[in-house]
Amino acid sequence: MRRYFPILEWGAEYNRQVLSADLLAAVIVTIMLIPQSLAYALLAGLPPVVGLYASILPLVAYAIFGTSRTLAVGPVAVVSLMTASAAGAVAAQGTPEYLEAAITLAALSGVMLAVLGFLRLGFLANLLSHPVIAGFITASGVLIATSQVKHIFGISGGGDNWPEMLGNLAANLPDTNFYTLTIGVIATGFLFWVRKGFTPLLRRFGMGEQAAGMTSKAGPVIAVILTIVAVILLGLADRGVALVGAVPQGLPPFALPSTDMDLIAQLWVPALLISVIGFVESVSVAQTLAAKRRQRISPDQELIGLGASNIASAISGGYPVTGGFARSVVNFDAGAQTPAAGAYTAGGIALASLFLTPLLFNLPIATLAATIIVAVLSLVDLKTPGRLWRYSKADFAAHMATILITLLAGVEMGVIAGVSVGLLLYLWKASRPHAAIVGRVPETEHFRNVERHKVLTLPHLLSIRIDESLTYLNARWLEEYVLERVAEKPELRHVILMCSAVNAIDATGLESLEAINHRLGDGGIGLHLSEVKGPVMDRLKDTHFLDELNGRVFLSQDQAWSELARDNGEPSPPNDQYLARGLI
Amino acid sequence: MRRYFPILEWGAEYNRQVLSADLLAAVIVTIMLIPQSLAYALLAGLPPVVGLYASILPLVAYAIFGTSRTLAVGPVAVVSLMTASAAGAVAAQGTPEYLEAAITLAALSGVMLAVLGFLRLGFLANLLSHPVIAGFITASGVLIATSQVKHIFGISGGGDNWPEMLGNLAANLPDTNFYTLTIGVIATGFLFWVRKGFTPLLRRFGMGEQAAGMTSKAGPVIAVILTIVAVILLGLADRGVALVGAVPQGLPPFALPSTDMDLIAQLWVPALLISVIGFVESVSVAQTLAAKRRQRISPDQELIGLGASNIASAISGGYPVTGGFARSVVNFDAGAQTPAAGAYTAGGIALASLFLTPLLFNLPIATLAATIIVAVLSLVDLKTPGRLWRYSKADFAAHMATILITLLAGVEMGVIAGVSVGLLLYLWKASRPHAAIVGRVPETEHFRNVERHKVLTLPHLLSIRIDESLTYLNARWLEEYVLERVAEKPELRHVILMCSAVNAIDATGLESLEAINHRLGDGGIGLHLSEVKGPVMDRLKDTHFLDELNGRVFLSQDQAWSELARDNGEPSPPNDQYLARGLI
Repeated sequence: MRRYFPILEWGAEYNRQVLSADLLAAVIVTIMLIPQSLAYALLAGLPPVVGLYASILPLVAYAIFGTSRTLAVGPVAVVSLMTASAAGAVAAQGTPEYLEAAITLAALSGVMLAVLGFLRLGFLANLLSHPVIAGFITASGVLIATSQVKHIFGISGGGDNWPEMLGNLAANLPDTNFYTLTIGVIATGFLFWVRKGFTPLLRRFGMGEQAAGMTSKAGPVIAVILTIVAVILLGLADRGVALVGAVPQGLPPFALPSTDMDLIAQLWVPALLISVIGFVESVSVAQTLAAKRRQRISPDQELIGLGASNIASAISGGYPVTGGFARSVVNFDAGAQTPAAGAYTAGGIALASLFLTPLLFNLPIATLAATIIVAVLSLVDLKTPGRLWRYSKADFAAHMATILITLLAGVEMGVIAGVSVGLLLYLWKASRPHAAIVGRVPETEHFRNVERHKVLTLPHLLSIRIDESLTYLNARWLEEYVLERVAEKPELRHVILMCSAVNAIDATGLESLEAINHRLGDGGIGLHLSEVKGPVMDRLKDTHFLDELNGRVFLSQDQAWSELARDNGEPSPPNDQYLARGLI
Repeated sequence: MRRYFPILEWGAEYNRQVLSADLLAAVIVTIMLIPQSLAYALLAGLPPVVGLYASILPLVAYAIFGTSRTLAVGPVAVVSLMTASAAGAVAAQGTPEYLEAAITLAALSGVMLAVLGFLRLGFLANLLSHPVIAGFITASGVLIATSQVKHIFGISGGGDNWPEMLGNLAANLPDTNFYTLTIGVIATGFLFWVRKGFTPLLRRFGMGEQAAGMTSKAGPVIAVILTIVAVILLGLADRGVALVGAVPQGLPPFALPSTDMDLIAQLWVPALLISVIGFVESVSVAQTLAAKRRQRISPDQELIGLGASNIASAISGGYPVTGGFARSVVNFDAGAQTPAAGAYTAGGIALASLFLTPLLFNLPIATLAATIIVAVLSLVDLKTPGRLWRYSKADFAAHMATILITLLAGVEMGVIAGVSVGLLLYLWKASRPHAAIVGRVPETEHFRNVERHKVLTLPHLLSIRIDESLTYLNARWLEEYVLERVAEKPELRHVILMCSAVNAIDATGLESLEAINHRLGDGGIGLHLSEVKGPVMDRLKDTHFLDELNGRVFLSQDQAWSELARDNGEPSPPNDQYLARGLI
């Protein structure tokens, strides 16, 4: 039970002190989350209130099923962008079908995450390497920021990729509303300044470092309040400034998600991508925060927690959610001790939905757009490409492919391309593993690569050290490598495969060994193994390979060398020239 | 030039002796290939003459571009079945559109193979492990044999998967034509007997072993001649026995393949699968035969050779071809010395197309079906599942998944499922690599796994040997593994990662090391590396990792242990209790 309901663990030790810590964190996160929820719903192309709905029940579900003590779930930028892309492919923004698609995405993603968790398939997230994730996040940041520029200028726009977006913006630029632009530019400038200059200012006025840092997170709320006041005082509603308008007051509407199979058939691929991206982002944040307090999270149970959150989002009219970086850090810094803080935050957002929404009528869309732009531009990372180029060309290739394809073909193709390029490069390398011809380091029992060390070799004896497990990916390579090395040495009588680094041999690898044994046998050459690991040897003993082996298995490479060095093909008694020369 | 035109190499040394050897082999292979070509065209759902067309120009193309001296290309059973499945999905058998689809498959497959060859992407064929190939071949054998049973009974049938085929056969069984059934059963029985009993019989009549074996390969030709004679003598054409009928006489019609983009969009996936399966089958045969004569083949150039063959097939009205096992062995055993034997075979088949086709009018379809059934049932391998089960459960799972999905969902899904299951199991294992906590073997410099050997450990010092390269697939595992081991040891002051088996560290692996270093540093624990390989160290030196490393890099594990064992956290001068107890 405790595995699937982590709440039973921390709930048992819950006390008054933890309660007050959690409540304080919840208040701070609630203040931060209200404008963020509205903004990300806007980014997802949904009515702002959907962002609030997605910030209530999902937080409660995560508090029950999640393993991180401090992760704050809810709408996040990248997943909102992916939702807009997927829902936009099946319906037009603003239609009921579009909202239905977004809710269905949350339901599908929730079920997929939960199933992956029960099957303990969290390892699939490993397919996203850091360079691919970093490329995807950078490109998404650029796409998201670009998608919001239209709101700053008060024009229409759109597009699924960067060139399309820029083209639409350029075409509509003459329609710019200058009142909107003024609000947008001031809000953006203010928010940038809050990020950099507000904390030092508060500190100068004598506020403590942590309190100042915390207060500066309220920047978006201040921008929201100030621009609402400006709209009312200056009568900007009549000047064509786009406003949030009427937001339905009340708690989320509960309903079962759609079971339209056509819709599900269209949405399952994007839902899977949303699930994987959301999971990877969330687990990275949760692991980082858990490590700071020496706590542990369970990735497989995190899948179940995020799955429950998304199912909760779907049945309460929300859209896909995951653990967000910025809000989790705020939650952590504000002193949250348990996931209960998330449940209290949910209460705060519920209160806001009940009572504050009428106040949002005059909120300019441009303010929300400014919030998004300032938040996501910090995601754009321009240093990684250079660092990767210097460290690993393969990683650089995967990173740049992800960035370019995300910008040019959209978020879904970007993730797929990044995973594919990474996997292809990995498989390419795995099919060409490292091996070395080794020789004896004089007067020792050690054997080293002949290309890097001064070592002894014998013309009738070839020692090959294989530095990798033998699998189907490298089996063909192994045959070619050994047979080519053999073809180069006409005097050869014995081949020793030094298996000290071979942790496993799969069925294809075994067949390759059999083929090598057979072909060497045809040429009168013995095949020997040395330093075979215990578990590998146990499995080989169950097969016919050792019976058919055209040579012997030696415990150590030294022993193999010493015995085979004497058998140089001349008539017995063994010619001791090598012995005499001190070579063995 | 010689890389792309292997003909330049063997052509330069061509002489009279080689010519006569090649000519003899060509005659024998031609006799074998005529009924086979007709039969496989039938299996592919195409007019029999298309099988002849696919056995002329492709052989000439392979002779120019191929690297195997003895491989015989042409229509083969599995590729014919895949062609039937792919072409059947876009048009009905017997229509011009169906033939066009088959020709387009050859063209697409040819281009894909050639491109893969120029890009040197032959390693992609490694994705098909032996258990997956074996499962696919077994299931294809069952599907092919079942698909021909209708011709033996003289009834109609069809279906894309095994249950469908069996259902259609059962439903149409009442329509059985007993004349057809008699011919079919006798032909099948005769061909089975020829395989087993004909060679011993010929030997008893004093024929040499090789000649007897060769003659018994003419079994299908004998069956063809005898059943044609029976049809004529008994007037079976009027009894409802299905016959081959009029076969157009003449050389193949040359034409450029279709450039209909809709058709290409529908066929590229099956064409890719046909390419990969055909390549893997062909290269396996070519490698086996080359090794017997100590020759070498080049897999990347084989891609180009097979690509050229398929393009040649497409422009001469044929369908996808590849190197066949049975005919290549006959070619080899008959003494073929160079690919010129293939070109002479092409001449033989061309002569047959010109002059022999009228004789085939009275050939019963049931005879061709019997030829196919007897040929493919030898592909069904019932021993492999048991062998795999004993050796490796993962390989068994991939094998059975391939068999079941091929039988139940058809050849395309079968290949895709086999590759996917194999890859998932591989990635699963790659994400959980082998590592061991090691301790010192008393009175030596060796360090071994604490779970398998009696070794010394110290409470403040943890040595972890990582038996795998650090990549993005196992980076998350590495962090969890190290941090969990650390959490178990409260007195810990130093962690040594012994990197003797780490051949590479990719960017994600490096970030994981940085994260581990950071987290250990937070807890006041040092992170040290030992036995880092030269190339790995060279790359690490280009990063900031070594500057930030919260510990040192030691050349040997022994040195690391000896120095760190003294630093047990007590005030300096170092407490020498471990030294005194002989532990270091």
